[in-house]
Order: sequence, then C-alpha cells, then structure tokens
Amino acid sequence: MRPGSGLYPEALERLVSQFAALPGVGTKSAQRMAFRVLDYSPERAETFANAIIEAKTLIHRCEICQNLTDGEICSVCSSEKRSKATICVVADIRDLYAIERARNYTGVYHVLHGVISPMRRIGPEDIAIAQLAERVRNEAPEEVILALNPDTEGEATAMYISRLLAPLGVKITRLATGLPAGGNVEFADDATIFRALQERIAVS
Amino acid sequence: MRPGSGLYPEALERLVSQFAALPGVGTKSAQRMAFRVLDYSPERAETFANAIIEAKTLIHRCEICQNLTDGEICSVCSSEKRSKATICVVADIRDLYAIERARNYTGVYHVLHGVISPMRRIGPEDIAIAQLAERVRNEAPEEVILALNPDTEGEATAMYISRLLAPLGVKITRLATGLPAGGNVEFADDATIFRALQERIAVS
Repeated sequence: MRPGSGLYPEALERLVSQFAALPGVGTKSAQRMAFRVLDYSPERAETFANAIIEAKTLIHRCEICQNLTDGEICSVCSSEKRSKATICVVADIRDLYAIERARNYTGVYHVLHGVISPMRRIGPEDIAIAQLAERVRNEAPEEVILALNPDTEGEATAMYISRLLAPLGVKITRLATGLPAGGNVEFADDATIFRALQERIAVS
Repeated sequence: MRPGSGLYPEALERLVSQFAALPGVGTKSAQRMAFRVLDYSPERAETFANAIIEAKTLIHRCEICQNLTDGEICSVCSSEKRSKATICVVADIRDLYAIERARNYTGVYHVLHGVISPMRRIGPEDIAIAQLAERVRNEAPEEVILALNPDTEGEATAMYISRLLAPLGVKITRLATGLPAGGNVEFADDATIFRALQERIAVS
C-alpha cells in the first residue's frame, strides 16, 4: 500500500515514510522495516528511538580534525600512538574509516566534509579547507597526504589545497593511483591503466 | 568499520547496529543510514524517533479482525461500504494490503498473524484461529475465503480451518491457483502448471 492511501494506520504510514527517506530504501523495504519495528518489544523500540536522538545530540565534529566524535577531541587525535607530523586529508568520514581499516596509517586526519564542486556549487569556503590551512600553519606537520578520490572533483580539490599550502613549506603527497590490489590488467579501465603506467615503479 | 571496533563514536555504533538489525539491511547500508541521520536537523531526527515510539504505542490489533489499527476498530471493519457477509482470512497484514490493492474485494478480513507450522513449532493456538471460529459462530457470515499462500504451511492451515468451521455451516472457499496474470506457460513451474490444469475453467 502506498503511504497516504489511508489503509495503513497513520502512525504506521509516518514510520514507513521515515524509513523510505533513508538512502537506498524503497517503499517495500520501508514497509518491511516498519513491520519489524511493530514486532519489537516496547523497550526495544525505545532503544531504537533513543539511538537516533543520542546519535544526533552526542555526536559532533572533532575540534582539531573534523572527524566525528562524542567527546571534544576524536579518538584518533587523542591517541598518543598517532603521529601529529602527518595529516591525511579526506573528503568524508567514510574515507577516514576506509583508511583506518587498512591499518597501516599511523598519522592523524583532517576531514574536509566535501570536495570543491562548481557543478554542485560547493566552493572552498563550504568545506573545512580554512581549518586545514590554519592547522598546518599552527602545527607545522611534516607532510600532508591528500587522500581524495582520483576523479575530477577530488583532483580539483587536491590542486586547490596544494596551492594553498605550498607557501607553508609542508611536504604534500597524494595516494598512488593504479591497478587495485587483486585487480586485473585485462579488465582495468583505460584511465586506470594510463595512470598505472604513468606512475610505474622501478622493480628493485 | 565494523561496529564495536571502537573507531566510531559509541553513539554512532549504537545507531548503526539498530539499523543493521532491520530486515534486509547489511552493515554498509546501516552505516549509510546512520550517516544520513547525522545529517538530519535535530527536529527531523526527533520526528523519526517519535515515529518509532508512536508506531509502537498507537498501533495495535483491531478487536474484530486483528488488522492493525490506531483506533479500536480498523478502517476496514468500521467502513459501512464493506460487507460483513464475507470474511477473507489472511496469514499476515501484508497479505491484507495486497488484496486491498487489487481493489475488487468488498468484504471484511480476519488476520491470523501466522500459519500453522510444526517445523517452527507454531500451533493453531499460537495464531488467531480461535478468534476466527468465535467470529464465524457469532456473526454467521455467508462465506469465509481462505486467502493463504498455496504452500505446505498455508494449505495445512487452510485444511485445519476448514475442518474447524465445517460444523458451522459456512461456505468455505480458497483463492484460485494457476498462472499469474501476464505469466507464461513456458516458464511456469511444474506445480503451478499442475494446479492450473486441475483447476481449468470452461471457456463460455
């Protein structure tokens, strides 16, 4: 039944449309989710509702790196094991988590919360670039790694940041581009092969 | 990042696991949903949380037919346009909505909230069969349509109900089985063709 058709009780329709507003959730899935919630115990439903409220009220951006945190400073910035000499710049929190999963990065991060995109009218002032420049000025790290997507917007953003930071004398690097690990020359797209050739590495 | 890995703020992990507990939602989708909620305004997040609580507190089963309702009696039972002489028995609320979508049924319903399943240890007393028998006894409808799935559990449940209601002298029918509308003889499964042949209809 389509929400608004009046067959569902209104309270159910409201819940279905809340689920349907989430990314990747169609009406059918939203209905299944709402029915599942109706099967929950009252306590369980309240735990769910509280999780939404608490995520919204407790979580904010880390003062230093703009990562998400429920404290003042995020778990990465407050860790003594992480070197402050390297700042890895990512567009999105999810990129940070992806890099953490690889488990070989021991520096800190800076989350831009977006990339420069003239098409979507996002300029440098709309993302956390000014905070990055100030941080590099104050903390004088040795290296800034631009871990942005190797696409038009990511590269435009990387270009903008590297020009902005150049006068500060910090070493600026970016992630390597090339064949994905476990990948396949035959099926790689032209742009990937082009860049893998350009950035080829001497073998011992 | 897997929930519990400690990289996410705890409040975010809790929200991710709530979403991941919903049907058809994997960890990745649950994360995307949680991030979307973080982007909500506080008011919007509160509306979402309230929708969960209200669905749980306001919605219950219709006294007459066990359909979901936020009043005492559901919209179908309370409609003057619906004939009480025919009761359509469905296993699940979603089956009721599916039949409503077809827009050619004008009787009322009875929702069993399950089917008899020895495998899953669901007996006749675990679903709303007693309420149906009492209703047929009291209301003396002309016809009971058993709109249960044409599978083992659905048919066992239909058999049980038809035996239980037989002494009450009500006409008992079930939905036709056969090729789905717009379906295809070539690709129909054996059981469907078998039953479509058995239940073949005279052409004028």
